[in-house]
Amino acid sequence: MDEVKVIEIKKSVFEDNDKDAARLRAELKSRGVYLLNLMSSPGSGKTTTLIQLINRIKDKIKVAVMEADIDSDVDAVKIKEATGIESIQLHTGGMCHLDAEMTRQGLDNVKLQGLDLVILENVGNLVCPAEFDTGACRNAMILSVPEGHDKPLKYPLMFSVCDLVVINKIDVMPYFDFDLDKCREYVRMRNPKAQVIPICAKTGEGVEKLADWILKEVNNWKTT
Amino acid sequence: MDEVKVIEIKKSVFEDNDKDAARLRAELKSRGVYLLNLMSSPGSGKTTTLIQLINRIKDKIKVAVMEADIDSDVDAVKIKEATGIESIQLHTGGMCHLDAEMTRQGLDNVKLQGLDLVILENVGNLVCPAEFDTGACRNAMILSVPEGHDKPLKYPLMFSVCDLVVINKIDVMPYFDFDLDKCREYVRMRNPKAQVIPICAKTGEGVEKLADWILKEVNNWKTT
Repeated sequence: MDEVKVIEIKKSVFEDNDKDAARLRAELKSRGVYLLNLMSSPGSGKTTTLIQLINRIKDKIKVAVMEADIDSDVDAVKIKEATGIESIQLHTGGMCHLDAEMTRQGLDNVKLQGLDLVILENVGNLVCPAEFDTGACRNAMILSVPEGHDKPLKYPLMFSVCDLVVINKIDVMPYFDFDLDKCREYVRMRNPKAQVIPICAKTGEGVEKLADWILKEVNNWKTT
Repeated sequence: MDEVKVIEIKKSVFEDNDKDAARLRAELKSRGVYLLNLMSSPGSGKTTTLIQLINRIKDKIKVAVMEADIDSDVDAVKIKEATGIESIQLHTGGMCHLDAEMTRQGLDNVKLQGLDLVILENVGNLVCPAEFDTGACRNAMILSVPEGHDKPLKYPLMFSVCDLVVINKIDVMPYFDFDLDKCREYVRMRNPKAQVIPICAKTGEGVEKLADWILKEVNNWKTT
């Protein structure tokens, strides 16, 4: 099994997270590195989606992943084994979210030189991570079909702060009462500009569209 | 559509939650009311499970439900319509968990006289709710098959504090890589005394066992 770097994240001492996040974003901009903050419930398929996505884009841009988890390093190892890219594990020591300073602690352990994209896989949680700007260029989230299409009604902030909502596990749609049109409608209630991309990370269906989205995003970030 | 009481929960002022929780538990004991704290990820099927469970026990014991959500009252309405029992909605105003004082604010709005069991459906979140003793007699959680059997590795505290782990959505087991034996093993790593009960809340499979567990629990609480 591959070994990955495991970083024990310390609690932030900064008081103004919004300011710190803006500072981090400006630094990333000046280095030409795009940071994506990926959020979701536990078990919605973040890691599997990342593996599919990275294998479609790694020949076009240079990517690294930071996997945040309360404990364990299974996700970082999985990503490294399945894609070969740099993947580090951030341990939050029980904390339910990452803020900008915690994200910076992670980035300090990534070789940013020459990198185009860093994806931060946030702690699996639809509540707290939405409250903290990590300094990322964009927030994205994955909602999986078994969780139900009503989640934008129940977790409004998460859907308000995300510019991309990936609907995962569409292969099991026949076995669940999931209404994709209703879901799109609820997502737009929270964020009218949000993009919705349905995928099946297991089979790869729809992931090409996701790859196009991120490649365009990274390109815009570097050139504007 | 039925109307339900909606309570806007205020942030706690108490500093020592453990003490406050112990006090609440003692009060509930003296009144003969059993409080169950039910936790899970968003979309694991808490509400559907509760409807199935309540319809199996409501002729034997008197039950009420408190539904905690950041927003919306869809769950409290669903429970009331499907079971006819008292069901109130607690709005946490963005907060990701309930502590003992917040639970007490809810209980102040329930007619406890003659009640045997109050079920608190906590905010959908595998992280923060596990950190706060609500004053409940027991903690239980639902893990649904699509979330994956590795969750006890990633969310250790949640599985450590729960005496009952309900595995829901076993009907879709053939479509997911979920290993029930491994899951049991991981649950026991966190809490060797935890009971694991597999169910399908949609069809009712296994819910009888869950009903037996809670009836026995309530009876023990009242008689010992």
